[in-house]
Amino acid sequence: MPQIVESVPNFSEGRRPEVIDAIVSAYGSVEGARVIDHSSDADHNRSVVTMVGAPEAVSEALFRGIAKAAELIDMNVQTGEHPRIGATDVVPFIPIRDIDMDACVGLARALAQRVSTELGIPTYLYYRAATRPDREVLANIRKGQYEGLKAELEAGNPDRLPDFGPASLGSAGATVIGARPPLIAYNIFLTSDDVEIAKAIARAIRHSTGGMRYLQAMGVLVEGRAQVSMNFLDYTKTPLALVTELVRREAARYGVGVHNAELIGLIPQQALIDAAQWYLQLDNLQPHSVLEWHLT
Amino acid sequence: MPQIVESVPNFSEGRRPEVIDAIVSAYGSVEGARVIDHSSDADHNRSVVTMVGAPEAVSEALFRGIAKAAELIDMNVQTGEHPRIGATDVVPFIPIRDIDMDACVGLARALAQRVSTELGIPTYLYYRAATRPDREVLANIRKGQYEGLKAELEAGNPDRLPDFGPASLGSAGATVIGARPPLIAYNIFLTSDDVEIAKAIARAIRHSTGGMRYLQAMGVLVEGRAQVSMNFLDYTKTPLALVTELVRREAARYGVGVHNAELIGLIPQQALIDAAQWYLQLDNLQPHSVLEWHLT
Repeated sequence: MPQIVESVPNFSEGRRPEVIDAIVSAYGSVEGARVIDHSSDADHNRSVVTMVGAPEAVSEALFRGIAKAAELIDMNVQTGEHPRIGATDVVPFIPIRDIDMDACVGLARALAQRVSTELGIPTYLYYRAATRPDREVLANIRKGQYEGLKAELEAGNPDRLPDFGPASLGSAGATVIGARPPLIAYNIFLTSDDVEIAKAIARAIRHSTGGMRYLQAMGVLVEGRAQVSMNFLDYTKTPLALVTELVRREAARYGVGVHNAELIGLIPQQALIDAAQWYLQLDNLQPHSVLEWHLT
Repeated sequence: MPQIVESVPNFSEGRRPEVIDAIVSAYGSVEGARVIDHSSDADHNRSVVTMVGAPEAVSEALFRGIAKAAELIDMNVQTGEHPRIGATDVVPFIPIRDIDMDACVGLARALAQRVSTELGIPTYLYYRAATRPDREVLANIRKGQYEGLKAELEAGNPDRLPDFGPASLGSAGATVIGARPPLIAYNIFLTSDDVEIAKAIARAIRHSTGGMRYLQAMGVLVEGRAQVSMNFLDYTKTPLALVTELVRREAARYGVGVHNAELIGLIPQQALIDAAQWYLQLDNLQPHSVLEWHLT
């Protein structure tokens, strides 16, 4: 099977349609890399692009998108509700098929170096690609936003030095590049209208209050039904099947059941195959046991 | 996503390597159709080829394989343990992706007509492509084998007339062409060495003794563990998840559990995704919610 990576670049323009179009077009200009979704928010003054494809093609497309944003966005005049430090703000590489996290870290570092060398933009490596523990968290890198980071670099604060490129911000600001697993947004509806039960279940299962390591969760009421709303930050380590059964067990403790579930956005096929493998107890399921594996 | 069909042609040669190679090569000679497996049995004097690809490419490859077998196999001298009526004996079209059974029936009829017209070989349509109820069952068409069918056609029995082509058999015999769902061979191991429990479960769940319509099952002992060995003849109507839970419930009635499960051969990806959807209760899972759907 050919290698596939996903990327979800965020850039700091959500208002001027002609600028958004030009940047999205740049992301879509490389054979073998495909823009499958993009959305813009005027209040945030920010756009998010979702793309997939071969590693080299996606890297080239990301470079072109970053170059185009640097040309069309001036951070000295950009304003919006969403925190940001650059024209292209954040660029994650996400392993999807036949490529591992280490390879995505390599892609992130290579792109960060190229962006700083060829475009003169300072770049910071984050999450799995981070070179320092404090840079694993995006918010730490973005602290003070464009204006604050610019002032700190001018003041010569060594803590804020970029991983690559000049120690000063131009009109394109800085760009954060890294690698992370795919994120899955998955919600379970309960057979109850009591949101307190959903909140109690969320507290029991999420990392922040003692639960599963790569899980965020909250309880909400959606169209009259209590819902446990979840983000899976690494489905390979905190899997959907186990969490679903944990929710079911906690719900039973309150006398309610699981009504149904829903996905928001995309899910990697492997996450569904992992769930099937777990529930069916197919201990030795091999990739080549799946007929479609032989198609490419 | 591009349309994908599978085919599993059977031809009546399992001994002469040069003949087997020539026929398998013919099946593999079309761009867009791929031979992913083949195996031969000398006692049966028969070979089975598994191929996948675009509908037109697979149809063309099947035609070439049938033509090559007709050239190299003489049914007047062929012998073997497996029942057969032709050099190429049976050719099923199997829908895999973005193609339905009706379209596969259409492919079967078109190929059957072409084989009879261009190669002068009588063809019979079977299973979902059958034109008469008695021809839904392969064994009815193959009754009397090559020798018996040849004699009945010579005697002018109208019941044995082919769907297409001449009412007499040459050295290539006749070929049965049709459409069927993918077959899944799936075994569940129990936490017991008592094969009688596996046999009782098999009797409860299989079609022949009152169970699920598209399920064959038997109880066997494999390496000291009781196993329910199953064939799913149509996983879209008799699904893996429901049958797995049925086995689990029946096993519990005998005080045993499910130890693990295994697949023999290939499984269509959709069968695993269906299982994930059922267990996770993802009522509205859409094909485009799966990230890989956007790759092609």
